[in-house]
Amino acid sequence: MRPQDIIRKKRDGAELSRDEIAFFVNGVTRGEIADYQSTALLMAIFLRGMTDAEQAALTEAMLHSGEILDFSDIPKPKADKHSTGGVGDKTSLLIAPFAAAAGVCVPMISGRGLGHTGGTLDKLESIPGYRVDLSLKEFRAVLDQAGFAMNGQTAEIAPADKKLYALRDATATVEAIPLIVASIISKKGAAGLDAMVIDVKTGSGAFMRWQNSARALASALVKTGNSLGVRSQALITDMNQPLGRAVGNSVEVKECIELLRGEGAEGARPVLELSIELAARMILLAKLEQSVEAARARVQRVHESGAALECFRKNVEAQGGDPRVCDNPARVLPLTDSRVQVESPRSGFVIEVNAEEIGHAIAEAGGGRLRIEDRIDPAVGFVSEVKIADKLHAGDAIGSVYCGALSRAESAAARIQAAYKVGDEPPNELPMLIKEVIDK
Amino acid sequence: MRPQDIIRKKRDGAELSRDEIAFFVNGVTRGEIADYQSTALLMAIFLRGMTDAEQAALTEAMLHSGEILDFSDIPKPKADKHSTGGVGDKTSLLIAPFAAAAGVCVPMISGRGLGHTGGTLDKLESIPGYRVDLSLKEFRAVLDQAGFAMNGQTAEIAPADKKLYALRDATATVEAIPLIVASIISKKGAAGLDAMVIDVKTGSGAFMRWQNSARALASALVKTGNSLGVRSQALITDMNQPLGRAVGNSVEVKECIELLRGEGAEGARPVLELSIELAARMILLAKLEQSVEAARARVQRVHESGAALECFRKNVEAQGGDPRVCDNPARVLPLTDSRVQVESPRSGFVIEVNAEEIGHAIAEAGGGRLRIEDRIDPAVGFVSEVKIADKLHAGDAIGSVYCGALSRAESAAARIQAAYKVGDEPPNELPMLIKEVIDK
Repeated sequence: MRPQDIIRKKRDGAELSRDEIAFFVNGVTRGEIADYQSTALLMAIFLRGMTDAEQAALTEAMLHSGEILDFSDIPKPKADKHSTGGVGDKTSLLIAPFAAAAGVCVPMISGRGLGHTGGTLDKLESIPGYRVDLSLKEFRAVLDQAGFAMNGQTAEIAPADKKLYALRDATATVEAIPLIVASIISKKGAAGLDAMVIDVKTGSGAFMRWQNSARALASALVKTGNSLGVRSQALITDMNQPLGRAVGNSVEVKECIELLRGEGAEGARPVLELSIELAARMILLAKLEQSVEAARARVQRVHESGAALECFRKNVEAQGGDPRVCDNPARVLPLTDSRVQVESPRSGFVIEVNAEEIGHAIAEAGGGRLRIEDRIDPAVGFVSEVKIADKLHAGDAIGSVYCGALSRAESAAARIQAAYKVGDEPPNELPMLIKEVIDK
Repeated sequence: MRPQDIIRKKRDGAELSRDEIAFFVNGVTRGEIADYQSTALLMAIFLRGMTDAEQAALTEAMLHSGEILDFSDIPKPKADKHSTGGVGDKTSLLIAPFAAAAGVCVPMISGRGLGHTGGTLDKLESIPGYRVDLSLKEFRAVLDQAGFAMNGQTAEIAPADKKLYALRDATATVEAIPLIVASIISKKGAAGLDAMVIDVKTGSGAFMRWQNSARALASALVKTGNSLGVRSQALITDMNQPLGRAVGNSVEVKECIELLRGEGAEGARPVLELSIELAARMILLAKLEQSVEAARARVQRVHESGAALECFRKNVEAQGGDPRVCDNPARVLPLTDSRVQVESPRSGFVIEVNAEEIGHAIAEAGGGRLRIEDRIDPAVGFVSEVKIADKLHAGDAIGSVYCGALSRAESAAARIQAAYKVGDEPPNELPMLIKEVIDK
């Protein structure tokens, strides 16, 4: 088998065999296939697509390119959630304690923020002392203590994905469904899961702007997950405005802990609503309940009883963080009082929000990364006061940018002001938070 | 400008600007663009194609990636011929002296054989002493002495093409018209030509099996050549059987010299016919004659007068070869008497020839290269006795394989025997040698 023959076949639109795909992925993992051959194949896959069989073979080969975690001795069902990424998307911090408190084992492998989207690892690291570089042994110990553990991807898990992702990023081959699916599911599969819920975001702050592309991605994810033995479901959810009020690291953790404590502001409600739904789907797929209604009720119970908050506290402690963050997040988290208010330039109704712009503005102010090597200032963030369809007078607060450096705060505020479109009439319809459930 | 943005644009089917193409080619030349980015773009070009404007910009940028030869002080028109490659395709050795003797200056940059096709440089090197690694100064001196000079591509001419060709070869992106055209025309343009004739082969021994793809390539070559100021014409010619009788290095040179001497065998006639036509087109484009008929007559005159042979003799001498090859090729060339006859296994008519198989058989026997680093045995070759539609009896000679090593000769003979399809009835129509003239 020669790499160029496999490239030629895909180039011409033919279906690659299981063996050809495995040859390619193994060659990439071992460094035996040149990067310039890999990227030619990636582009051919981008433009020619993959059949369901190719998709499953690619994902499986990538899954087996490294270690596979084995938690089979833990008697609980293992499940996780994955999100395609958005602005203010902080549901992992609620879902993990909800599901864990409800009896699911949640070995969560998360990522860092890049561009306009934040990352769960960065958010957690704003809790002083919190570690996301656990060894496999430590990860396992945290799982036992808290029911959920949060960690970065290690070099041992799906190394082919790590290699290919870096190449895709440099060659405009990121946004191909077969490659996205293989990347996500290979990592989840290697974490030894029984079930998985996927939050596919769509809208102005999402990777998938349009619902039909989101649907295609969701369906491919669910199909591939199921074909590899991970029971999977996807929700297509709204990302036409930031989820909740907070965008940034410390401010998002604060919002989550307030919600876990039952103290969340009204504007943060959608975060809770979506987290409950995703956690309920995990519990359902984990077969701890027979219906989604029963699963939702179970989540409500662990929330209202404080069991989920206790779970979160145990996790923070087990991962080296300061557990007092659960009692008084505002005192423990690195926040700043230095803020610039974003004001509405005119009276009217919020008719549209460019969520991607808000994400970029906060990243540029220091709250995220423009390049992988950038360092994050956890105190930088934006807290909004309004949502789509809200009524505003000229000069009313749209929200506040928190940032120690005034000039950076001011330019972020200007950019965010422009991201809110205020018109004379309210919009015809409100975006639905949960748009669709995809289960095949 | 970032390479990934250019890749993305082409990936999505948009037209690249002149500046974007120049940025890419310059980056490749200077080693500033990673190979894995180049190959992703090459695959995107392969699958998305290029507009005429992009094609011209790519070719021009590659042309300017290195030195441009300047023969403007030579008062004669400068012209060359290029062939897309075939089996037994030896016309360069006739066309160059024909055109030179007719008053055209022919600075010919040629290539080596690879796979089933031979290369002009390899053929010339079978003349003892003949050098094809002339310095620019030597090349110029040969042009002055003989009217034509034959040389390999130097590192200074179109270095971007050299780099990209190696990458294309490893990534199944060779057979894309925009890339083929840019590769050919950039090198020809850098040789400072006024005019150019292109022989686009089609059939079982050609790169382009089908006439419609050959036509598309021919048209793109002519258009791009003209747009860069090189007056261009293409002929689509038959490659459904070897051109002439000889396939191999020494045997092809022998066939050419015999034709120049007016002593060619009947089976070699198509070589002469095609060479006269191509040389005539060069003379016409070089504006030395007003009509193709007059140009043909001029070629006939320099052939019959022996002026072309004298030109060839001067060239051989000037390039360090033994000029006595022009008087007695059989004595000077490294030929072998060791041969295996290929016999027809049955009676009937030759209805089809797999010319590519013949090329591969001779290459494998040592007469060509399977890999770039292979060494050639100039004595190895095949001389055919039959053509499509010829009548044969079982046991009649199809031809002879010449090769010092008996076992290699025998396996080549078996392969060539299988390449000749003998049927009960003659074919319905004979392949036309010259199928089409493409002038726009």
